Amino acid sequence: MASEAMCAGSIPARRTKIMRKKVVSVIGGRTCTPEVEQIAQNLGKKLAKVADFLVCGGLGGTMEAVCQGFKAENGLTIGIIPSYDKNDANPCVDIVLPTGLGLARNVLVVKAAEVVVALPGEAGTLSEIAYCIQCGIPVISLSSWDIPGVIKVKTVEEAVEKVKELLNRSDA
Amino acid sequence: MASEAMCAGSIPARRTKIMRKKVVSVIGGRTCTPEVEQIAQNLGKKLAKVADFLVCGGLGGTMEAVCQGFKAENGLTIGIIPSYDKNDANPCVDIVLPTGLGLARNVLVVKAAEVVVALPGEAGTLSEIAYCIQCGIPVISLSSWDIPGVIKVKTVEEAVEKVKELLNRSDA
Amino acid sequence: MASEAMCAGSIPARRTKIMRKKVVSVIGGRTCTPEVEQIAQNLGKKLAKVADFLVCGGLGGTMEAVCQGFKAENGLTIGIIPSYDKNDANPCVDIVLPTGLGLARNVLVVKAAEVVVALPGEAGTLSEIAYCIQCGIPVISLSSWDIPGVIKVKTVEEAVEKVKELLNRSDA
Amino acid sequence: MASEAMCAGSIPARRTKIMRKKVVSVIGGRTCTPEVEQIAQNLGKKLAKVADFLVCGGLGGTMEAVCQGFKAENGLTIGIIPSYDKNDANPCVDIVLPTGLGLARNVLVVKAAEVVVALPGEAGTLSEIAYCIQCGIPVISLSSWDIPGVIKVKTVEEAVEKVKELLNRSDA
Repeated sequence: MASEAMCAGSIPARRTKIMRKKVVSVIGGRTCTPEVEQIAQNLGKKLAKVADFLVCGGLGGTMEAVCQGFKAENGLTIGIIPSYDKNDANPCVDIVLPTGLGLARNVLVVKAAEVVVALPGEAGTLSEIAYCIQCGIPVISLSSWDIPGVIKVKTVEEAVEKVKELLNRSDA
Repeated sequence: MASEAMCAGSIPARRTKIMRKKVVSVIGGRTCTPEVEQIAQNLGKKLAKVADFLVCGGLGGTMEAVCQGFKAENGLTIGIIPSYDKNDANPCVDIVLPTGLGLARNVLVVKAAEVVVALPGEAGTLSEIAYCIQCGIPVISLSSWDIPGVIKVKTVEEAVEKVKELLNRSDA
Repeated sequence: MASEAMCAGSIPARRTKIMRKKVVSVIGGRTCTPEVEQIAQNLGKKLAKVADFLVCGGLGGTMEAVCQGFKAENGLTIGIIPSYDKNDANPCVDIVLPTGLGLARNVLVVKAAEVVVALPGEAGTLSEIAYCIQCGIPVISLSSWDIPGVIKVKTVEEAVEKVKELLNRSDA
Repeated sequence: MASEAMCAGSIPARRTKIMRKKVVSVIGGRTCTPEVEQIAQNLGKKLAKVADFLVCGGLGGTMEAVCQGFKAENGLTIGIIPSYDKNDANPCVDIVLPTGLGLARNVLVVKAAEVVVALPGEAGTLSEIAYCIQCGIPVISLSSWDIPGVIKVKTVEEAVEKVKELLNRSDA
């Protein structure tokens, strides 16, 4: 029988803890100002030090910039896109999940992670923040929507520190 | 602006091809005989030589066995599960996508890959094979449903050879 | 408090049974031969005598023909379409549900009903039949796919008789 | 061939306009105060004068109260629920659509209608308001979230007047 212990390749009697990869999701607009783009790239670079995988909506703007930064530091990026066309994903996405679900894919982007960082965005980003709050997934707002329940931060460094802390907590 | 060339870290003028990770999906029953389990593990091991990521439905039976094999050869595994509970994923899944979509998640499992291998399974597996045929995604049936449009193979080696060929074709 | 009894407008102490509308779903190809179209229209007309609402995928071919028949006998039709564009629904759909879910909407079409009738169709229809079998929803195959678990019938009359019987059973 | 004109039962040469049923969606919390419940019931009653069908999330609280009012005035109610269990729908739902999509069903609730009325609710309601704004579906906030883009009203009468106006506009 396929068992947890066999999976880890260890002696069946010595059950090991399941080791999942650490996943962070970043949400934000599909278009953004050059300033926000710089912030998103910087965020991506720094997040690569604390998480194994970056999940995002896979399109342009903040999504592309954060993937670029994450990938530049050898992190792996997953883009959960609304269409069925893998070409719709930005070039910095390593693994494209073409859901074909339209807006409903927003739920998947936030559910994939233990912690979510929100960059500036419009109503789509707001729907994702709302889902985080509804599901009890911590959502860090870096100059994004200010809704009761978000964790407000002012700098990329603060955001990354908070992500690190929350990812470690979910290990325990 | 975040561009394809910047993403690859190269000189903007020298545009590089987008390099996505190679993804294979395996579908099959959430329970299986010990014989099928052996086949699934063996398939997983051999697929790890030709693909970077394995996508599956993330649950037990054939899904767990194929993840186990793929992971044993240092491949990375993604489990697209029907519920919102990451604990529902088998222990050999590296990255859990808790879709909460129920049966509708089947579409995502097949759409993630350039090529799909079907192991024995029941109606759930049949729905996934049907989606492959509808979408024009090549589906290799290894002792699974025999529906017009599937590529029938008899051995794990044949299946892997076919996957390799089809993944390379999608590079072109 | 909004209660079951209040809903029915009766005295709170005299709890009434919930009376849902009777819903039948019909699945089948989005293109069809003139012969199948005649059968689908005829099926729609006769189903209107035994069910209140017809649910289908809302597009053309068998879906349009069955809606046409159902509507001709004063039944109400619901089209659960894959896109977000209500104009994609055929003109005989009374209520369009634009899901934007792509192929994943197939699950919704079958889950809406107590009993499903399958007309000839391709892989999309097969995926829906597979979902019925997986979920234990009775599926009547009228010259459609012959998969273990379907109820095979030869005539429209037989199909409608079977639907009637199964809808009444689900009342009990 | 099944045509628009045939559908309407008229002479093929005299093409008639497609006549869909008028659908309004109401969103709001699954629990509510007695005051909000009264408002929701009243809203339901008055909406039945201007729309044929009420779509909602099908659960309790504001959803049940608005269904109760709508049904009391002989309107028909559709509940698009997150689970696969029809029994999860409140007793005033006439047609249950058991999506099994979890939170992703929120998108369907708003997309079904030409116009949406938001009653008080928490993050789930906020996600639905966000989808309306993202999709350009008019959303009337009756003491609900105050997000840029919503149409704020103070009374049930104002809300219904606005719905009537917007439903007629979508006829044109």
